[in-house]
Amino acid sequence: MKSASTTDLLHQIPEDLLYTHHPKPVRHEIIESKTPLDTKALETIDIKADLHRKPVTLSDKLAFFIVKLLRLPTDWFFKKKYIHRAVMLETVAAVPGMVGATVRHLRSLRKLQHDGGWIDHLLHEAENERMHLMTWMRVSQPNLWERTLITIVQGGFYNTFFLLYLLSPKTAHRVVGYLEEEAIVSYSSFLKEIDNGNIENTKNVPDIAIDYWNLNKDTATLRDLVLAIRADEATHRDTNHHFADRILLGHEDLRDDVERIFKGDAGGKANKMAGLTDEAAEKWKWNK
Amino acid sequence: MKSASTTDLLHQIPEDLLYTHHPKPVRHEIIESKTPLDTKALETIDIKADLHRKPVTLSDKLAFFIVKLLRLPTDWFFKKKYIHRAVMLETVAAVPGMVGATVRHLRSLRKLQHDGGWIDHLLHEAENERMHLMTWMRVSQPNLWERTLITIVQGGFYNTFFLLYLLSPKTAHRVVGYLEEEAIVSYSSFLKEIDNGNIENTKNVPDIAIDYWNLNKDTATLRDLVLAIRADEATHRDTNHHFADRILLGHEDLRDDVERIFKGDAGGKANKMAGLTDEAAEKWKWNK
Ligand SMILES: [Fe+2]
Ligand SMILES: [Fe+2]
Ligand SMILES: [Fe+2]
Ligand SMILES: [Fe+2]
Repeated sequence: MKSASTTDLLHQIPEDLLYTHHPKPVRHEIIESKTPLDTKALETIDIKADLHRKPVTLSDKLAFFIVKLLRLPTDWFFKKKYIHRAVMLETVAAVPGMVGATVRHLRSLRKLQHDGGWIDHLLHEAENERMHLMTWMRVSQPNLWERTLITIVQGGFYNTFFLLYLLSPKTAHRVVGYLEEEAIVSYSSFLKEIDNGNIENTKNVPDIAIDYWNLNKDTATLRDLVLAIRADEATHRDTNHHFADRILLGHEDLRDDVERIFKGDAGGKANKMAGLTDEAAEKWKWNK
Repeated sequence: MKSASTTDLLHQIPEDLLYTHHPKPVRHEIIESKTPLDTKALETIDIKADLHRKPVTLSDKLAFFIVKLLRLPTDWFFKKKYIHRAVMLETVAAVPGMVGATVRHLRSLRKLQHDGGWIDHLLHEAENERMHLMTWMRVSQPNLWERTLITIVQGGFYNTFFLLYLLSPKTAHRVVGYLEEEAIVSYSSFLKEIDNGNIENTKNVPDIAIDYWNLNKDTATLRDLVLAIRADEATHRDTNHHFADRILLGHEDLRDDVERIFKGDAGGKANKMAGLTDEAAEKWKWNK
């Protein structure tokens, strides 16, 4: 079977499959940097680590409660094993983007409507989270017991999140927003453990990570990696809370607003979020 | 609620969402063309409309049987209403790529393994099929009865195909390969009806299609649209049969082969499929 013909067949790759895809980072600071990012550049990225979206509606409160509940067994199980924790959490973190993209794709097909420009961003989130996992699994290999747990947790989480997204996409995005707030807390504790010397700041940074985040290959450390990943989580926190807000406001279509901003609506471009304006922050209860 | 604060909130689009995604076509003839494509250019695309992968293994035969079976109610329902048929079929055609991408994404996370470069291609296929639908729905609006049918068929097809992909990804890709062979037959009949004068060759080509396939906006007709879409279906036919072959041969990872071809393995680049070599065609029973 593995003769000349097999080789032929594998050579006969259809045209379309020859276009290879290079994963694109999610943060503009990384996409746009002309030079590799060192520790200082990574620390300069303004991620607003303490940003918290106060739960206002019932849906918000439910989402917040779910996330706080999920945190308990996670803290109990991993304690301060932050690298192991990261591997496990990233296997879960890459699920919601794929589910959201699927549900919106199916809805667009079923209702014969444009999806308003969300699908690609949700897939981009899923890919970014998968890149986090591809990175961590090169730093630390989970044991058999953890691998079994990963399989069980994925089966449960995929189906539960799919159902939640079908029932209330708004709550689903809010859940992800809060999960990302927690991810930032975990990665911040991870950083603290490195700074304390409790976790060694190795130079064991995989090539895939150096390439993806455009890190400085001569100086990159574990701490740089955590900084880069935590910055991505901040992006997902902001996009998912924003998606939930859009559904809440009944204004899902992204295209108009993006166009208006690029067409030079005064201040629009400068207004781009991370923190909201004071007025909106008051109204929608973002803190800090 | 729809006051100043609402507007503020919608203005506060997170950075990442400002990167808008422009859907990319799947055929290199379209991607690489410097000038808009007219009828002649579209007719020149070598799609090998009669290419048929003979079923060899039991999995192939099952896949072929399923597709032939699915064709019966479709033919009965739509008869020669090719535009209506296209709307309905594209709502289904955009499902397998998303399912395949999801299952492989989840598997990559669960097994902590790189997926071998398939996910992005499968998502690209799903997007392309969604673009077919976004195009057709601007040409013809389905009635209420057809919309209801679309919803029912999608629910059934999504779940059945998901299960099939979990049980046998090889059979699932083969099914898509054969579905695409049938799509080519349908679009060829559509062309024949236009050439016969039974369907009017209108200039009612939506902007989204002109932009996506880089059609000539002054001369584009319905027939050009069918040619462009049929060429896409030929790509999906080839990629899906190729995916099934790779699983059959136990050589899923695309990356090595793509790299070898680009690194100038003699004849490799010229070898790129559409038809196989004579030897491989004999072995793997592609016809014509
Ligand atoms: Fe992550
Ligand atoms: Fe995350
Ligand atoms: Fe299609
Ligand atoms: Fe198709």
